[in-house]
Amino acid sequence: MDSKKTLALLQEVKNGTLSPEKAVLKLRTSPYEDLGYAKVDLHRELRQGVPEVIYGSGKTPEQIMGIASAMRKNGVGTILITRLSTEAAEIVEKAIPLDYDEVSRLGIAGRKAEITSSGIIVVASAGTSDLPVAEEAARTAEALGNKVTRLYDVGVAGLHRLLSKLDVILKARVIVAVAGMEGALASVIGGLADCPVIAVPTSIGYGANFGGVSALLSMLNSCASGVSVVNIDNGFGAGFLASRINHLGDKE
Amino acid sequence: MDSKKTLALLQEVKNGTLSPEKAVLKLRTSPYEDLGYAKVDLHRELRQGVPEVIYGSGKTPEQIMGIASAMRKNGVGTILITRLSTEAAEIVEKAIPLDYDEVSRLGIAGRKAEITSSGIIVVASAGTSDLPVAEEAARTAEALGNKVTRLYDVGVAGLHRLLSKLDVILKARVIVAVAGMEGALASVIGGLADCPVIAVPTSIGYGANFGGVSALLSMLNSCASGVSVVNIDNGFGAGFLASRINHLGDKE
Amino acid sequence: MDSKKTLALLQEVKNGTLSPEKAVLKLRTSPYEDLGYAKVDLHRELRQGVPEVIYGSGKTPEQIMGIASAMRKNGVGTILITRLSTEAAEIVEKAIPLDYDEVSRLGIAGRKAEITSSGIIVVASAGTSDLPVAEEAARTAEALGNKVTRLYDVGVAGLHRLLSKLDVILKARVIVAVAGMEGALASVIGGLADCPVIAVPTSIGYGANFGGVSALLSMLNSCASGVSVVNIDNGFGAGFLASRINHLGDKE
Amino acid sequence: MDSKKTLALLQEVKNGTLSPEKAVLKLRTSPYEDLGYAKVDLHRELRQGVPEVIYGSGKTPEQIMGIASAMRKNGVGTILITRLSTEAAEIVEKAIPLDYDEVSRLGIAGRKAEITSSGIIVVASAGTSDLPVAEEAARTAEALGNKVTRLYDVGVAGLHRLLSKLDVILKARVIVAVAGMEGALASVIGGLADCPVIAVPTSIGYGANFGGVSALLSMLNSCASGVSVVNIDNGFGAGFLASRINHLGDKE
Amino acid sequence: MDSKKTLALLQEVKNGTLSPEKAVLKLRTSPYEDLGYAKVDLHRELRQGVPEVIYGSGKTPEQIMGIASAMRKNGVGTILITRLSTEAAEIVEKAIPLDYDEVSRLGIAGRKAEITSSGIIVVASAGTSDLPVAEEAARTAEALGNKVTRLYDVGVAGLHRLLSKLDVILKARVIVAVAGMEGALASVIGGLADCPVIAVPTSIGYGANFGGVSALLSMLNSCASGVSVVNIDNGFGAGFLASRINHLGDKE
Amino acid sequence: MDSKKTLALLQEVKNGTLSPEKAVLKLRTSPYEDLGYAKVDLHRELRQGVPEVIYGSGKTPEQIMGIASAMRKNGVGTILITRLSTEAAEIVEKAIPLDYDEVSRLGIAGRKAEITSSGIIVVASAGTSDLPVAEEAARTAEALGNKVTRLYDVGVAGLHRLLSKLDVILKARVIVAVAGMEGALASVIGGLADCPVIAVPTSIGYGANFGGVSALLSMLNSCASGVSVVNIDNGFGAGFLASRINHLGDKE
Amino acid sequence: MDSKKTLALLQEVKNGTLSPEKAVLKLRTSPYEDLGYAKVDLHRELRQGVPEVIYGSGKTPEQIMGIASAMRKNGVGTILITRLSTEAAEIVEKAIPLDYDEVSRLGIAGRKAEITSSGIIVVASAGTSDLPVAEEAARTAEALGNKVTRLYDVGVAGLHRLLSKLDVILKARVIVAVAGMEGALASVIGGLADCPVIAVPTSIGYGANFGGVSALLSMLNSCASGVSVVNIDNGFGAGFLASRINHLGDKE
Amino acid sequence: MDSKKTLALLQEVKNGTLSPEKAVLKLRTSPYEDLGYAKVDLHRELRQGVPEVIYGSGKTPEQIMGIASAMRKNGVGTILITRLSTEAAEIVEKAIPLDYDEVSRLGIAGRKAEITSSGIIVVASAGTSDLPVAEEAARTAEALGNKVTRLYDVGVAGLHRLLSKLDVILKARVIVAVAGMEGALASVIGGLADCPVIAVPTSIGYGANFGGVSALLSMLNSCASGVSVVNIDNGFGAGFLASRINHLGDKE
Repeated sequence: MDSKKTLALLQEVKNGTLSPEKAVLKLRTSPYEDLGYAKVDLHRELRQGVPEVIYGSGKTPEQIMGIASAMRKNGVGTILITRLSTEAAEIVEKAIPLDYDEVSRLGIAGRKAEITSSGIIVVASAGTSDLPVAEEAARTAEALGNKVTRLYDVGVAGLHRLLSKLDVILKARVIVAVAGMEGALASVIGGLADCPVIAVPTSIGYGANFGGVSALLSMLNSCASGVSVVNIDNGFGAGFLASRINHLGDKE
Repeated sequence: MDSKKTLALLQEVKNGTLSPEKAVLKLRTSPYEDLGYAKVDLHRELRQGVPEVIYGSGKTPEQIMGIASAMRKNGVGTILITRLSTEAAEIVEKAIPLDYDEVSRLGIAGRKAEITSSGIIVVASAGTSDLPVAEEAARTAEALGNKVTRLYDVGVAGLHRLLSKLDVILKARVIVAVAGMEGALASVIGGLADCPVIAVPTSIGYGANFGGVSALLSMLNSCASGVSVVNIDNGFGAGFLASRINHLGDKE
Repeated sequence: MDSKKTLALLQEVKNGTLSPEKAVLKLRTSPYEDLGYAKVDLHRELRQGVPEVIYGSGKTPEQIMGIASAMRKNGVGTILITRLSTEAAEIVEKAIPLDYDEVSRLGIAGRKAEITSSGIIVVASAGTSDLPVAEEAARTAEALGNKVTRLYDVGVAGLHRLLSKLDVILKARVIVAVAGMEGALASVIGGLADCPVIAVPTSIGYGANFGGVSALLSMLNSCASGVSVVNIDNGFGAGFLASRINHLGDKE
Repeated sequence: MDSKKTLALLQEVKNGTLSPEKAVLKLRTSPYEDLGYAKVDLHRELRQGVPEVIYGSGKTPEQIMGIASAMRKNGVGTILITRLSTEAAEIVEKAIPLDYDEVSRLGIAGRKAEITSSGIIVVASAGTSDLPVAEEAARTAEALGNKVTRLYDVGVAGLHRLLSKLDVILKARVIVAVAGMEGALASVIGGLADCPVIAVPTSIGYGANFGGVSALLSMLNSCASGVSVVNIDNGFGAGFLASRINHLGDKE
Repeated sequence: MDSKKTLALLQEVKNGTLSPEKAVLKLRTSPYEDLGYAKVDLHRELRQGVPEVIYGSGKTPEQIMGIASAMRKNGVGTILITRLSTEAAEIVEKAIPLDYDEVSRLGIAGRKAEITSSGIIVVASAGTSDLPVAEEAARTAEALGNKVTRLYDVGVAGLHRLLSKLDVILKARVIVAVAGMEGALASVIGGLADCPVIAVPTSIGYGANFGGVSALLSMLNSCASGVSVVNIDNGFGAGFLASRINHLGDKE
Repeated sequence: MDSKKTLALLQEVKNGTLSPEKAVLKLRTSPYEDLGYAKVDLHRELRQGVPEVIYGSGKTPEQIMGIASAMRKNGVGTILITRLSTEAAEIVEKAIPLDYDEVSRLGIAGRKAEITSSGIIVVASAGTSDLPVAEEAARTAEALGNKVTRLYDVGVAGLHRLLSKLDVILKARVIVAVAGMEGALASVIGGLADCPVIAVPTSIGYGANFGGVSALLSMLNSCASGVSVVNIDNGFGAGFLASRINHLGDKE
Repeated sequence: MDSKKTLALLQEVKNGTLSPEKAVLKLRTSPYEDLGYAKVDLHRELRQGVPEVIYGSGKTPEQIMGIASAMRKNGVGTILITRLSTEAAEIVEKAIPLDYDEVSRLGIAGRKAEITSSGIIVVASAGTSDLPVAEEAARTAEALGNKVTRLYDVGVAGLHRLLSKLDVILKARVIVAVAGMEGALASVIGGLADCPVIAVPTSIGYGANFGGVSALLSMLNSCASGVSVVNIDNGFGAGFLASRINHLGDKE
Repeated sequence: MDSKKTLALLQEVKNGTLSPEKAVLKLRTSPYEDLGYAKVDLHRELRQGVPEVIYGSGKTPEQIMGIASAMRKNGVGTILITRLSTEAAEIVEKAIPLDYDEVSRLGIAGRKAEITSSGIIVVASAGTSDLPVAEEAARTAEALGNKVTRLYDVGVAGLHRLLSKLDVILKARVIVAVAGMEGALASVIGGLADCPVIAVPTSIGYGANFGGVSALLSMLNSCASGVSVVNIDNGFGAGFLASRINHLGDKE
């Protein structure tokens, strides 16, 4: 809870318009709704300027619907639901209008986002198999009001594919580099670009990729500066962070 | 090599002011100086607007001096030397004026950086033992033209220390969160802040911290959005990336 | 076998009321029933004041029923069956009255527990997906005679949810902190509370959480004192230990 | 910050004896002293009833002395300094009277603790080489006001050594089980005792013990209920937690 | 190929009863049958005094039948088939008389083994869930001509169950100790017994047992001498080795 | 892009037969076809003298067909599809004539390869269960124009099987050694052969083989010189590299 | 404590020659001497027919001397001290006559062992660098009364060195196979021999040998039956177990 | 032992010029010299056309000298000694003329190698810190009769450095790619080259590079075909294998 709100509250107490007991209660009753199985955070959009997100995995369709309904009831405009299975999407869709994408398993409920940043986010992926993660990043960024350019299947084994798109790389304000296997794409892009690069290791590969560990370590040890890393297969996190950075270029 | 340069080169060839043979040569003779043991990249400052960096570890003092001299000879204004041992610093200092900090083992050769961004980078660290890494991040960011606010020893075991600085957190344009042991600081700051958070795991701790792995995994799995991670103890990388993001807020 | 019993036995031998041969036999014939595939420990309730527990995973429904029946035949009042699948529960239920919970997969056979401690055990969980483990802990503790307060979905990404329940934290005699992903909840609670905290890492998450390893390491490296850790997803173990600690406050 | 204090503060604001601005300031100015490199938490003794602890590793003797002096100046009675090297101890000793133990590398500054709990903490260790960790646990517990019984070199390879001390095991209110190598001691004690057991894996061993990992995993997977685990070699943490549990038996 | 045979062969060459060319051929034509997908070793029974073994996992029922038929055709008396699924067993059974056990997934084709050693092999297991591995060891040993005593569910959490069978432990010539979770059983038996102990870690457990790694490391780091370890879940290997050791006591 | 082509291009620009703008475009329009989800590299056969390869895993049958069709349309003679499931093969087969092998899951579309090297590649495997990987290597090599000798089930547990084929080993120009479990085959062959040995660890085994890690480490640490390693189960990679090496013996 | 002793004790109680109180005491006062830092087990020689062993690592020279003196005072004939540094050996030697070997760091105090088994233990090592571990095994076995044949530097990279000693392999009653790097020696010997093989992985190697893990996994996954494994570098354990097995051939 | 030699031997036996007994002896007395601590393989140069190699690490200077002397006495022309410390080199140098390089720690004793292959081996390294490993590879290859082109400090962070040397890459017959950190160099070179690429991961880096594991996994998972991998820091192995492959292009 930030200090401006605390100050306003205390001012009310001083003015006698709020009793100390009620003030304590108010400090307690923070803006979330308690559903028992979840405490829905209702002021995040206000506080952070972004829609609310529901992590779909490990929740029943019923729980997802309950959380989404509580949000909508409280005026949340756009709701992102990540890792939403096709089955769950079908159930949720009956209750809430939903824009669902099977590849990325991302569902977007509510009004469409408007473009709110002048910058461009480039989402680059090494191979065709990395698409689900890349699309999760791209669609998340779009849902948060960003222009996105997709650059798919530009892995380093055929370097000319990437080099032929060098101008796209150089015009980006943020780049999301998605790669499995040896994850070298992040380092190569990091060496070419002069903007922040968010690397997303994917679990694509087999054997000694250990479910994405090879790409993860590769990206963490990138010899190129300006590269940071999110969790394996975390397309949403990369898209979210890319949006946050992309909006900095317009903010101040 | 970007397309504008290629186009200009080809125009010269068309105009007859450059023979095809020489053009090929020119495309080859990229702007680095070959010292045998190193190929010094001389146009990075021009290309990316940042001073050149020498990774000191694993290089002899002689190699470091050789690389730094080649840079200065070619007009590089500010040179950062990371992971520079006290012994090597003493030898380098004899040849080049050097601002050396023992805690972070960072050496800065050449002219001092001017503040070139209106934003503030907050460098927060969990404990006193994380200082070397935090200082490497902070000094790197300062050398790259950023205002830095330090917030040290604000680990989550005594949460009131961090909460009492909430206004500092909320005013930052980028935050670097440095922590060893369980690395929870990154998640807690990530939940409080509305700007990009760069998490730096440190090797501080013992036993099952496995040289920083516990903090690294913690940060990669952060439940807070907007957090990305760099390598264990990579204060330089975090400071460099923070600077890049911080300057976005002024660029466009 | 404790010394008082040995002494009593020897006294009988001295008095001639027990032959040495029979005494050896008695020392041998310890109070368990041998079912071939299992040696059912029948005096644990007596010895340790707690009901007997059957670890359901990896046992056939028939084996579970066999063990439970042997216990009941020997007068065990309450029997806990952990990791009991819905299918196995249905089979067991036909033979023994069973209170089964699908979320935690915990089955309780026999008479309901009475509250035997004046203290309160708080079971806190970071997210909705951690519920199965949290419920296993809570229901285990209740079955062992404890008052339990549930504090679910209070993860550190939205710190105000936890802080608004600070009074609950401060009134607890023991706290069980259940969290997956980065497991920071344990450290934050450990820093706020002044009672023992039992941390339970869960396998919730993906990618670099490595099936709960990230949370496990996080908790083992907690910078807060007073925190100890049980196995990944071991809600039962945490509830059992919490009960043991909670009853200390009443015992002496 | 707990709710009673908040209420009192707000009451003052209502009464007009405290301006809202000062109240915000007060909420901010939490009771620590900022030394730049460290924020010394000065109300922990008050809050949690235990002396303050300095983790000595990774801090310079000067930093340790600075922190300890700030504490003493603010009236902290007893100060524990863990992982204190002999060299650092000699330097600290010149400024502050110090009770230093070379085996456990624990230093205790200030007044001696009085026994404040009627219970007994048993510290058991598997081998002679585990002594430094076991002594850290034992001395920590003693410094926090507990009676401690030491049971050293009772590893499971010679089970009769442990069984001959069964009465000691059964009289304990808490047991700290310290073991390296295969760490089986924790499970065996866990099966014999009816009180909480805190397992401390040590890094003692070689080869496939991987610096304590073998004992750590062994203890986390203990088939005995009532066992929880702290970090490898974390004698202090075990002693601290044991004290907290031991005092529960007297508190209420 | 041992030297006596080589000598005999050379003698024949010298005598002129065997041409050098044919001798080379003979050295080549070693006693196996090549099925294309497998080279069936036909002289192992002769060479090592034990029946041939087929590792069933990863082979089609057809391949298993092909190999077994080749063996029988060449006079192999008893054939062990390990890790044989129920489905494969049913198919194989149609072609070859098979004694199949579902718990251990061991199939024995051919004539029953006679007891050929006077010693006793004890197979001890920690829990009911370890039965499949323990039975694989026990049945393998029996098929190789050994007397086996089973000691199941004697895990260290209830030490009296094991201690009550101390006489069985002391009469064994070899002991196979089967345990999952923390695998402490091997160390405790190793400390009590004076014969070779073969430890078999099992994958039984969950979370930080990492599929048997916890028990494996525990057993490799056993503080008791005289303990060696085989692969996780390798009941066959333990039974085979136990038989080899058990027969030493009769051999010379 | 190699320098000869660049030079030719520039010459055209100089001659005025190509405008600088079009030249830039041409440098960009590298020879691949962009299908959106994939950028099909069409000049690899020309450039590297080998057919194009599609990694089937993680691609939908539709994507595989799309990529293969684009290739054929552009004149690629032979197309290898690795890790192709039976289901996908059936779908692809309807559109393109396909030579599909169920064991290795390798599909070959287009004209059959002619033998283009005089050398022999030996593919040796340790056990019957390693066949799928060994066949992937063998068939890949055959599809790339090599003579292949198969040497299956020659694991080191029955050394005479391998030694009897020593002449085959000695006549090879390259050897692919495929083995799971402890992977010792690579070292033994490496010690016997005087040609390059490509080791392929397989995931065959259980327990502490950790999905092929045991064989992988074994092969990386081979005490025999001349051995290099590819990824676990990467039969294709080994076959491809073997072909490349095998053709060296004919090239120059 | 075995049952014969318990029976005798109880008989005395019945006869009245021993009071119950004293019997309890006697059961308690097991035959070890408590030195505070160590509980010296004094009846192991009697019980298990082997000399006592002191694990020297992690003990001060004073502690080693204290333990050894307690043993000698109580009549232990031969004392093995493993992992004894040269420095410690020099100190111990002043108090007790010591046969110390620098290569294996094994010290033997007391009377020399006589050969008590007719069998031969073969200790084979892969390389010259494995000597310290191999010698620890060989000297331990000799000190326990065994005939030992050394077979050093017979690694699989030069298979003819091992094959030329096949007769030695075939005459052994037990074989200890010592190897670092890829540890293939154990499998190859396991395939040739028909006696128990104890595999000892060593930490010899670099890079991906991970301190002996590569050899350890290799040996655990050995495709040859009859092989079991001890801890990395545990020459003593292998020698001890080999002796136990070797004496079985004479015992009954 | 190959079949031609066996045939010749047998022919002698048939002719009566060799007694069977002596033939067995001869088969036994393979061409190595037994120094006790080492069995020096003396016919490898003959058999494999390459000089003998001594792995210096873990051997005393005396052992190295002993082995080298035995070789020279038996006519080995060139001897490579790898991982030779400066101290050991000085001692060896006194007895044998030695060409020692401090960077790669490689010593070459005996006559200089002549160039025996027309191909070129390119040794490329990512950074200046990788030099020791790269030089070990380069000097090994030179000592084995190869022309070597060095391409140092061409890491992917500054891609133009590598691209400007594309002609060197394309003219190579074999490439050794040496890189630490994220090891992306191997994949990028693998995508550009059409010859075999041997990847050597180095331990250069820090934190999550885990002593070379990041580069190792990266290289094993390379998306480029034609790449195989040797052990971390194994410059010798790469140079040796590169030589073997390079000579294939001339052999047949």
